[in-house]
Amino acid sequence: MAFTTFPPPGSPPGILEHRSGRLTQPSRLRIIRYDVDSLEEKADATVADCQNFKDRPGIKWLHLEGLEDLTLLQDLGACLGFHPLALEDVVEGRAPIKVDDYPNYLFIVSRLVTDLIDFSDEQISLFLGPDYLLSIQETHTDHFSIIRERLRHGSGQVRSQGADYLAYTLIDYIVDSWFPLLENFGERLEDLEDRLLSQPDGKLTLELQSLRRQMLRGRRMLWPIRESINTLLDLEGTLIHEHTRVYLRDCHDHAFQVIDLLENFRDIASGLIDVYLSSLNNRLNEVMKVLTIIATIFMPLTFIAGVYGMNFKTELSPWNMPELSWYYGYPFALGLMGMSVLIMLIYFTRKKWL
Amino acid sequence: MAFTTFPPPGSPPGILEHRSGRLTQPSRLRIIRYDVDSLEEKADATVADCQNFKDRPGIKWLHLEGLEDLTLLQDLGACLGFHPLALEDVVEGRAPIKVDDYPNYLFIVSRLVTDLIDFSDEQISLFLGPDYLLSIQETHTDHFSIIRERLRHGSGQVRSQGADYLAYTLIDYIVDSWFPLLENFGERLEDLEDRLLSQPDGKLTLELQSLRRQMLRGRRMLWPIRESINTLLDLEGTLIHEHTRVYLRDCHDHAFQVIDLLENFRDIASGLIDVYLSSLNNRLNEVMKVLTIIATIFMPLTFIAGVYGMNFKTELSPWNMPELSWYYGYPFALGLMGMSVLIMLIYFTRKKWL
Amino acid sequence: MAFTTFPPPGSPPGILEHRSGRLTQPSRLRIIRYDVDSLEEKADATVADCQNFKDRPGIKWLHLEGLEDLTLLQDLGACLGFHPLALEDVVEGRAPIKVDDYPNYLFIVSRLVTDLIDFSDEQISLFLGPDYLLSIQETHTDHFSIIRERLRHGSGQVRSQGADYLAYTLIDYIVDSWFPLLENFGERLEDLEDRLLSQPDGKLTLELQSLRRQMLRGRRMLWPIRESINTLLDLEGTLIHEHTRVYLRDCHDHAFQVIDLLENFRDIASGLIDVYLSSLNNRLNEVMKVLTIIATIFMPLTFIAGVYGMNFKTELSPWNMPELSWYYGYPFALGLMGMSVLIMLIYFTRKKWL
Amino acid sequence: MAFTTFPPPGSPPGILEHRSGRLTQPSRLRIIRYDVDSLEEKADATVADCQNFKDRPGIKWLHLEGLEDLTLLQDLGACLGFHPLALEDVVEGRAPIKVDDYPNYLFIVSRLVTDLIDFSDEQISLFLGPDYLLSIQETHTDHFSIIRERLRHGSGQVRSQGADYLAYTLIDYIVDSWFPLLENFGERLEDLEDRLLSQPDGKLTLELQSLRRQMLRGRRMLWPIRESINTLLDLEGTLIHEHTRVYLRDCHDHAFQVIDLLENFRDIASGLIDVYLSSLNNRLNEVMKVLTIIATIFMPLTFIAGVYGMNFKTELSPWNMPELSWYYGYPFALGLMGMSVLIMLIYFTRKKWL
Amino acid sequence: MAFTTFPPPGSPPGILEHRSGRLTQPSRLRIIRYDVDSLEEKADATVADCQNFKDRPGIKWLHLEGLEDLTLLQDLGACLGFHPLALEDVVEGRAPIKVDDYPNYLFIVSRLVTDLIDFSDEQISLFLGPDYLLSIQETHTDHFSIIRERLRHGSGQVRSQGADYLAYTLIDYIVDSWFPLLENFGERLEDLEDRLLSQPDGKLTLELQSLRRQMLRGRRMLWPIRESINTLLDLEGTLIHEHTRVYLRDCHDHAFQVIDLLENFRDIASGLIDVYLSSLNNRLNEVMKVLTIIATIFMPLTFIAGVYGMNFKTELSPWNMPELSWYYGYPFALGLMGMSVLIMLIYFTRKKWL
Repeated sequence: MAFTTFPPPGSPPGILEHRSGRLTQPSRLRIIRYDVDSLEEKADATVADCQNFKDRPGIKWLHLEGLEDLTLLQDLGACLGFHPLALEDVVEGRAPIKVDDYPNYLFIVSRLVTDLIDFSDEQISLFLGPDYLLSIQETHTDHFSIIRERLRHGSGQVRSQGADYLAYTLIDYIVDSWFPLLENFGERLEDLEDRLLSQPDGKLTLELQSLRRQMLRGRRMLWPIRESINTLLDLEGTLIHEHTRVYLRDCHDHAFQVIDLLENFRDIASGLIDVYLSSLNNRLNEVMKVLTIIATIFMPLTFIAGVYGMNFKTELSPWNMPELSWYYGYPFALGLMGMSVLIMLIYFTRKKWL
Repeated sequence: MAFTTFPPPGSPPGILEHRSGRLTQPSRLRIIRYDVDSLEEKADATVADCQNFKDRPGIKWLHLEGLEDLTLLQDLGACLGFHPLALEDVVEGRAPIKVDDYPNYLFIVSRLVTDLIDFSDEQISLFLGPDYLLSIQETHTDHFSIIRERLRHGSGQVRSQGADYLAYTLIDYIVDSWFPLLENFGERLEDLEDRLLSQPDGKLTLELQSLRRQMLRGRRMLWPIRESINTLLDLEGTLIHEHTRVYLRDCHDHAFQVIDLLENFRDIASGLIDVYLSSLNNRLNEVMKVLTIIATIFMPLTFIAGVYGMNFKTELSPWNMPELSWYYGYPFALGLMGMSVLIMLIYFTRKKWL
Repeated sequence: MAFTTFPPPGSPPGILEHRSGRLTQPSRLRIIRYDVDSLEEKADATVADCQNFKDRPGIKWLHLEGLEDLTLLQDLGACLGFHPLALEDVVEGRAPIKVDDYPNYLFIVSRLVTDLIDFSDEQISLFLGPDYLLSIQETHTDHFSIIRERLRHGSGQVRSQGADYLAYTLIDYIVDSWFPLLENFGERLEDLEDRLLSQPDGKLTLELQSLRRQMLRGRRMLWPIRESINTLLDLEGTLIHEHTRVYLRDCHDHAFQVIDLLENFRDIASGLIDVYLSSLNNRLNEVMKVLTIIATIFMPLTFIAGVYGMNFKTELSPWNMPELSWYYGYPFALGLMGMSVLIMLIYFTRKKWL
Repeated sequence: MAFTTFPPPGSPPGILEHRSGRLTQPSRLRIIRYDVDSLEEKADATVADCQNFKDRPGIKWLHLEGLEDLTLLQDLGACLGFHPLALEDVVEGRAPIKVDDYPNYLFIVSRLVTDLIDFSDEQISLFLGPDYLLSIQETHTDHFSIIRERLRHGSGQVRSQGADYLAYTLIDYIVDSWFPLLENFGERLEDLEDRLLSQPDGKLTLELQSLRRQMLRGRRMLWPIRESINTLLDLEGTLIHEHTRVYLRDCHDHAFQVIDLLENFRDIASGLIDVYLSSLNNRLNEVMKVLTIIATIFMPLTFIAGVYGMNFKTELSPWNMPELSWYYGYPFALGLMGMSVLIMLIYFTRKKWL
Repeated sequence: MAFTTFPPPGSPPGILEHRSGRLTQPSRLRIIRYDVDSLEEKADATVADCQNFKDRPGIKWLHLEGLEDLTLLQDLGACLGFHPLALEDVVEGRAPIKVDDYPNYLFIVSRLVTDLIDFSDEQISLFLGPDYLLSIQETHTDHFSIIRERLRHGSGQVRSQGADYLAYTLIDYIVDSWFPLLENFGERLEDLEDRLLSQPDGKLTLELQSLRRQMLRGRRMLWPIRESINTLLDLEGTLIHEHTRVYLRDCHDHAFQVIDLLENFRDIASGLIDVYLSSLNNRLNEVMKVLTIIATIFMPLTFIAGVYGMNFKTELSPWNMPELSWYYGYPFALGLMGMSVLIMLIYFTRKKWL
């Protein structure tokens, strides 16, 4: 629930600054230039390289990891001509998932889930131009190595398509990385259901609530991702080619699938809470029934025993507990008790409590 | 809740592959070519037959059962010119219910409920071209034999209409196969209601929840089916003829009917849960009332008996329980007890607990 | 909850057949031809009469009661040129409330509530052409006799208007027949509220649930009726005249009024359930308080009595219950008890339980 | 909840008739003709006056109180040319809040709250023509005297504007008369909150429910009022001048304000119900805790006292309750009891029940 | 919940008047005129200054604090040509958040949160013309000093942009001032969650409810703010420049972020209430289990002790409690008790209550 401090109200917009409480990692830029036939790669690139690569033919993929070096980011923005507000969104790392349509490029913000258990995520920012893609991530975790591999080996059609197809590949990666998370949710739900049926206790509610909260967060992350893909699909202009649109539509279907499964899980989780509450209620009913049966049987018995434990002087009056002196006094008392039990048992059977 | 493993994020799109954990059945292709006057049928057809039939006049219905032979599917796709993403959707078997409008054909994904009790379903994929329909199902269950029969005997107008009418016939089948399921739901609901009124127990909640979950799943399956029929109705172009639209509208009405009944059942199920919870509450109230009445009557009695069971030495002082030596001591004690019971009974009657 | 069997999936559309489990009544056709000056009426008419009346001037109202004679219906359809799917909707009697806009006529499906207590209803189908109206009902109940009377006596403007005005008259009848039902709902709600305040018991929940279910069904019937009137209002073409639109708008207002009242009742019913549940809770609290007060007062008393009922030999030791031999032993014990009661009473008063 | 009887279904539309069960008051017509310079007023006017004033220059305000004289209403309608359905809506007094756009005039239906405590309201019907306004109310309560005063004294701009501005003034009055009601709601809510915190009892739920019901009714009345102002704002044609639109927009803002406050109150009321239910639950918990503590402490004590109250003959066997003959037998028994209490207290402290 | 008195219904619109119960502060006007190169400032300005500055080049920012001097406001309105209704909205201080598009200027109403703990807020009214901005606040709290500083020092681009950019700066301030509030909400939620897990009591519900109420109010304030930014973005005309729109879009993103976080907190709060209720239920179950176990164990014991405390005369009959005279009578009784305890313990273990 903790979040880093926000900029104080009234500070001017478009200023790149690290907020206190935000951890940043050293910046590393990697540039890959490719076309159908060739691929060139430069790790630990600098702004000079950006300038260098910029006007050469082929598709340029610039990938920036870590946001420590704000000058690098600012220089990159200047080199490719980005709006300061977009760069500020990158640095803040808290922008809503969206597609901003600037005159010569698209600024796409998305979020990638990075941890199944703690449900942490990081912002992935994409700047898509006519022949380049700048992707920026905050941490050093190498999410997109598999896509780099596909590029290097030329598998699939990614080498023969434009920068928009590369952007699609990254977005598709982001959407598809939800599936393992969903399997994790599914397993935890099944586990909770099993435990709820075998030995329900109070911790279950807490765990269910935390699961629901994560699913809610997931839903709130997924809807705008789906919306942003929709925006890309509806976008006019030449940045997204017709050929890529078909693939984005497929990616949109995947996002829909994820949301659908998530909704399914949410229903199941809600149902489990209902079942749990009604099992609590049932249990209370059962406990109370046992108490009532025991109390209702033994109270009259104890009373009868109490009566014949009174010390009235039988010798002073024939009215004073003559039963005590009867020959069958004790069996009579026991019989009285037995009858009381019998009556109660009949009563309970009639009430269907037994 | 279990689902097969998903493709790892970052894998290239449009690749036909079986996911592990997915059971596939041998592929069998059947081609039927028909017009008003003639009908030709070829079971266990091959891609060569597809090539063969393709350009001959009349309507061609290709029906593929089982997805084991991915080469066959790929060759069919190549023969008729389908997009690899559509074929991937067929193989994955998890695509959302939809209508994809490709330049020369429609790709329609739907789901058919195959089991009433376990509520399992399978994906039915349709490729509708100007004069052909390719329908693909995953299992060997012969759902559409009745339609094949209608074709063979030329009953109804199916022989005199185009491929779009044939597609309508299949979609209509899918929608109408919901009706037996609804009857099953209806019967289970009635049964649950009867048991809830006669002898409610904890299992009822579980069963109600599972029923609600199935109905929810049904609703989530039916809405997109209805939407996809709507899409077909609104589609521009020549693939869907005006004549068929009237029938699709009728099919749309059926889908609406099913959804309406389902909503009805969901309301009833929700109502039953409310009734169940309030009956639990009532029962607890009743149990507690019995306990309270018994305790409230017998506690004073036992107390009085306890008092006269004390061993104060009457012989040492006239203050020490002189009642014990009274001539009518015992009747007096019994009278005291009777009065206490009487007071309590009056109190309970006033409170309307009796 | 029971419903007649549905057609098996895969059966060809547009076939008129009686489903098993459906009760049908003998078909009776009545034709009324009228204009401002004259009115001609023929009961027990045949298809020949239809053919006969068809091209004569004036407005023709054909009213068909009972659906046993499917040939008659089919012939009527052929005579006036209706689509087989529309006729199938008439026979099935389960079509959603709707307006289907066929080239030369409108097909309007509505439902009329026929029983206040069981909440049963029947489908009313209207075929509205340029100068005729065919209305079809399933039972022989003479709903529309009052309209026939108005026609015969020429009261109101119905004789001077077209077939669309006649259709409006029937639809208005259907909407207005909800008002008595609403009064019935209102009275049952008031009755339930009274009983809930005087002597709530478990049956109330069941009755409230059944009332809510009926209101929900009502709502689900009324919304599409309102929608279908809207469709008629928005319809282009010459079948609905401008003059009639004003009346349809009024009818739309009535439908709105009914829905508004129904929503009102639903709110009240929901509120009653809340009040009932919280009264159950309150009652439980009260019962438990009584039990706790009684137990808390008498348990210490019984304990004290129990202590002085112990049989320790006072003669063997001065430590063994010397109180028993005190001169004021018994009053001392009683005093102890009185004090214990006093302390408890003070405690309860402080807790505001008394 | 009671409402007057409705017209029987099937009765012809546009007929002015009093429904039984409806109380009507004598009709009184007042005509005010004004322009910037002059103002003429005629109380107890007749239809002849209407005819008379009709074509004279200036704005004419006709105000009708009481609906007893249906002929007067009908004649007014004929004089100014109103549709019979609009007049019927006036007489019925149950029309939905709306704006009907007739060729030469607008028919505006609204409702004015007339009683804060019982929440009764009456229909205000306005007929707005190019240079006249006919306003009709059912009772004789003189709601609009303040506006008449403003007209007479020429305060504000009402004298210099058209009939549409006068209509705005009335609608504004209707909206603003909600504010005192809201203050009443606010006070009752605060009062309920105070009582809920000091001494909650069962009546609170009933009062809260009735308050919520009133607020719901209010919301259901206010939304269409707001909608009808919107309709007036969007209306094409010359009946509403541009100058008046700005004022209507302001009136729309007021309606929004009222709805916003009402929603606020509804949230607070819902929250109070939650707080009440959880306080009931808490209270039950507390009661049960007291009972359990008392029972758990005294039951072992009473048992120990009971053991040493048994009458086994100590003289016949050294095994028969030798404790009774111990020198410190009684202190030993008391010690046993003390220890049992101690153990229980420790247990309760550990469980944090004390 | 208290609010100042409303104007009585029927009072003429556009009249500037202080409502009773409304506290006003002395009016202070400050005018700043600036362009890229120069900045001129006049505190405690008068209407004459307004007239004076009006037609000079550069951007004019008029800032009015306090509403005591209604003449000043009225004169300002006259000087700049504002509609009386807009001025009335300023004085009332209760207008909905909105953008009113007058011919030559925009009237923007917003609300600024001024107190985190009590959640009080004040209306900020902006009049945006082609080259001036009039901002009005009710209190003397110097919210916008930081923006004044930025203007004076020429930091950021505010000096080089138009009046619309200045307006954006103020709106951005209003939105960003939500972030500290959100941190406050977050901390309170965390604190409540900790306390709920360690020692839940009844006050928690009250605090949670009050927190939820504040969040609801926040949401109801934020949505219209976001909407009003949207309106500004969609506005046609030249008052908002293209350059400023990009910044407004960023501000819109911030508003979205705030709403998103708020929704997150609301979910967490709702979840906490659920957890709290189920923990109450659990606790009750546990208490009842302890009571039942104790009662069920000790009631049979006390009964057995009671039986052997009866005073039947053993000397008169061999049937009268011969156990009392057995050699091992006492051990036998104790054994009986032990066995009863043992049976109960086995029963509870089977029921998994221990």
